[in-house]
Amino acid sequence: MRKQKTVKESYVIMTELVLPNDTNTLHNLMGGKMMHWMDIVSAIAAQKHSNRIVVTASVDNVSFKESIKLGNVVTLEAKVTRAFSSSMEVHINVWAEDIPSGKKVKSNQAYFTFVAVDQLGNPIDVPEAIPETEEEISHYDGALRRRQLRLVLAGRMKPSEANELKSIFDIKEEEA
Amino acid sequence: MRKQKTVKESYVIMTELVLPNDTNTLHNLMGGKMMHWMDIVSAIAAQKHSNRIVVTASVDNVSFKESIKLGNVVTLEAKVTRAFSSSMEVHINVWAEDIPSGKKVKSNQAYFTFVAVDQLGNPIDVPEAIPETEEEISHYDGALRRRQLRLVLAGRMKPSEANELKSIFDIKEEEA
Amino acid sequence: MRKQKTVKESYVIMTELVLPNDTNTLHNLMGGKMMHWMDIVSAIAAQKHSNRIVVTASVDNVSFKESIKLGNVVTLEAKVTRAFSSSMEVHINVWAEDIPSGKKVKSNQAYFTFVAVDQLGNPIDVPEAIPETEEEISHYDGALRRRQLRLVLAGRMKPSEANELKSIFDIKEEEA
Amino acid sequence: MRKQKTVKESYVIMTELVLPNDTNTLHNLMGGKMMHWMDIVSAIAAQKHSNRIVVTASVDNVSFKESIKLGNVVTLEAKVTRAFSSSMEVHINVWAEDIPSGKKVKSNQAYFTFVAVDQLGNPIDVPEAIPETEEEISHYDGALRRRQLRLVLAGRMKPSEANELKSIFDIKEEEA
Amino acid sequence: MRKQKTVKESYVIMTELVLPNDTNTLHNLMGGKMMHWMDIVSAIAAQKHSNRIVVTASVDNVSFKESIKLGNVVTLEAKVTRAFSSSMEVHINVWAEDIPSGKKVKSNQAYFTFVAVDQLGNPIDVPEAIPETEEEISHYDGALRRRQLRLVLAGRMKPSEANELKSIFDIKEEEA
Amino acid sequence: MRKQKTVKESYVIMTELVLPNDTNTLHNLMGGKMMHWMDIVSAIAAQKHSNRIVVTASVDNVSFKESIKLGNVVTLEAKVTRAFSSSMEVHINVWAEDIPSGKKVKSNQAYFTFVAVDQLGNPIDVPEAIPETEEEISHYDGALRRRQLRLVLAGRMKPSEANELKSIFDIKEEEA
Repeated sequence: MRKQKTVKESYVIMTELVLPNDTNTLHNLMGGKMMHWMDIVSAIAAQKHSNRIVVTASVDNVSFKESIKLGNVVTLEAKVTRAFSSSMEVHINVWAEDIPSGKKVKSNQAYFTFVAVDQLGNPIDVPEAIPETEEEISHYDGALRRRQLRLVLAGRMKPSEANELKSIFDIKEEEA
Repeated sequence: MRKQKTVKESYVIMTELVLPNDTNTLHNLMGGKMMHWMDIVSAIAAQKHSNRIVVTASVDNVSFKESIKLGNVVTLEAKVTRAFSSSMEVHINVWAEDIPSGKKVKSNQAYFTFVAVDQLGNPIDVPEAIPETEEEISHYDGALRRRQLRLVLAGRMKPSEANELKSIFDIKEEEA
Repeated sequence: MRKQKTVKESYVIMTELVLPNDTNTLHNLMGGKMMHWMDIVSAIAAQKHSNRIVVTASVDNVSFKESIKLGNVVTLEAKVTRAFSSSMEVHINVWAEDIPSGKKVKSNQAYFTFVAVDQLGNPIDVPEAIPETEEEISHYDGALRRRQLRLVLAGRMKPSEANELKSIFDIKEEEA
Repeated sequence: MRKQKTVKESYVIMTELVLPNDTNTLHNLMGGKMMHWMDIVSAIAAQKHSNRIVVTASVDNVSFKESIKLGNVVTLEAKVTRAFSSSMEVHINVWAEDIPSGKKVKSNQAYFTFVAVDQLGNPIDVPEAIPETEEEISHYDGALRRRQLRLVLAGRMKPSEANELKSIFDIKEEEA
Repeated sequence: MRKQKTVKESYVIMTELVLPNDTNTLHNLMGGKMMHWMDIVSAIAAQKHSNRIVVTASVDNVSFKESIKLGNVVTLEAKVTRAFSSSMEVHINVWAEDIPSGKKVKSNQAYFTFVAVDQLGNPIDVPEAIPETEEEISHYDGALRRRQLRLVLAGRMKPSEANELKSIFDIKEEEA
Repeated sequence: MRKQKTVKESYVIMTELVLPNDTNTLHNLMGGKMMHWMDIVSAIAAQKHSNRIVVTASVDNVSFKESIKLGNVVTLEAKVTRAFSSSMEVHINVWAEDIPSGKKVKSNQAYFTFVAVDQLGNPIDVPEAIPETEEEISHYDGALRRRQLRLVLAGRMKPSEANELKSIFDIKEEEA
């Protein structure tokens, strides 16, 4: 039987200080640097779940609403949401904090997907991820839908076959 | 009347050499570093279109199919696809080349969206982007649909109102 | 009356991946890079306690027992142990983990001291730090002794006046 | 008989320019970056003495009195003070200079200890270090005392056995 | 017969954004960073021509006339000008652009020379480089003269034997 | 009267350890990184001579004969050779050392030229540089000739007017 691990065993926190080279000419953190950090924290979560080397397979839509300033402290939390055969989806929450002013905002969230590989780089099976809290179950439940969206966007699934995904467009209701 | 610029005026090429610190323990380029480069090249394209400072607003789903090795040369090409009032969608194509072996693959493509801002960081209008080639027109035409997907995923548009987007799920056919 | 904050309000976790440029020719993490990370994580803890910009005032003796390899994940936890007028001592625990092999070791611990400063760089008072757990109380109690050692080593206190410090050399007992 | 080398054969000078990414939001050099430089310059001194790969074993208390500004030139001088079987203590002097204003201050001093290792990472004997100048002899003479302090602080020697160390607390005089 | 490749097959464009750590205290790009970029872009051009690993053999005189500011976009274009047995001269053109102000200047040009090597680091023959445009032919024609200057400056050719080079000093005319 | 400083007052030593990110796929130091270091060490020498902010004006031909390996220690020594009104020529000597094997080679030498500027970036006069040793006098004497070569190569002096420079081509002898 396939090995099981709880979602919380993969939990990772990363804290970064926004340094000059991370910023644009308005002294705001550049989006690319943020994604670089997201990739590292979520890769570590996927490593912890699989005890394997992992490679980034895809990044879901990320939006940047808040500007994060030079000197801010950025906290990233990552947790595997669900494991498929050799791939794992990881959810990341990001907060930015201007400590002297006491202002802390949730700046981003994202889903990254990783594939566990052996030393030759070939995909290898990973344990099942068992959600426990309500939030973990909700991420787990949405994982199939997000996976279909990834496959459709990558041209590897026909939209008409993406049943989970269609549901978010309330198609049944609309037809009714 | 709103100023117009052709899409090709925003065209940027960036070339990067994969260095040791860009790689994981398998000596493959890390996904986060690739996204960092994508963000810079597409920000420059958006700057060229708008002649403004720009900030990253969102990144669409990116998938990573090819492993890119230490010492490879990565070429990124970016072009604005379409401009909305103060935002611009940029398309990026990425190639990875192992020059000694003569192997070159198209490794990724992505859409990044930027907002043009003034010196205070407030959004400011940008010129219209005029597509000319068939490929540019195709990117231009798909931009509305991708924009709806971004809004739906960010919880700022109800799926049932995303008319452009629904069309990709062949809903008409299903209703028939 | 002086403001009070619990020790745990300053708690910070930082996670770092050991990259090629962090390592020597044996592919082990260099001590200087580790101290760079320790400085950042403990500065953030001191910032959280004081809500001020902080500057490093001193680093206590740090020893390096374990070699940490390329690709390992390093976790640093920092917490203020005790606050004096404008200075704060921070304790840091460091773990190194080779995730694929499941090997995790406590690699280091350290005490860093910071001074809170205003925008002109002048020292400014900080809240008192209230320890709650047994471990926090033990760090709090040892802080005076470590402070005397720092002052003696910096030539700012005569050894014969360092009463707290002398006690660790069991002088009373020896005289008996 | 054990090989001998003079202390001055290990002498190294390193010069660094304080760049934006080395500084905090007050544009002062961060303590962690300074320690990173100290580690590199002293590792090179230990390499020169031993003609071996060396690994950092410990760092003694370092205090930071002067703020060092962006654009300053930092000069670090390192010299082995004394060699034990496979370990070497290195002393580092640091100056910071604001060249346009002609202001130069001695900003720090520190002792780092390194262990010489073979290609497998096992400790290996190093030559004796022969001090020649008065300053070198003074560093050499204090090395035993500092070594005992390190062992006591690392919990590897009982304070009551640290005879060299006790002497700095004027215990004889007090007993009289 | 020796393989032939056109000059344009080696053409590379690189685009860089001037970040804080690339600048001096006047917020201008440092010359050394520019040369670092020139080396990478021209090494890639030489790799493309030779399909080999290449090592930098020499850099010709480079002059810096324009100050390039933080936030500017720097575009570097490189092309092999001429191949000798195992070495290739590469010409680099550099533009700096302040996009918000629409100001673009040609900031530098340079010639770098590379040697193609095999996996052991030994020199290995490269294809002939065939110039096609007027500009390419002009660079090709000047390559011998520049090569003689390099050899004279490196003390590997007597000035009196540098016939190509002498011609630029109009010696015939002067003798007349 | 113009201020005078001896050449040796500008003397700077810089020591660098070759780290993974400084190397190509053969694990050799890249030429561009070496030039980056040369620029920093010589800028510091020019700063020390002028007590001003300095900007790189030009780099003379540099040749790379020795491959420098990962883990090597690179020592750069810089000294002003001669000052003109607001510009200074700096000579740099570079050694590379593989300390475990005891192999040390002189790997490069170079001349960099800097202009002293005020806070607005305008050129400003610098002290005269007084050579004292035989080697310093030899660098001083050659400085005019190298300056003419720079001006000719930059198209700012006609070759026929570069009298100092012509002398190196033994023109008198040839005419005889």
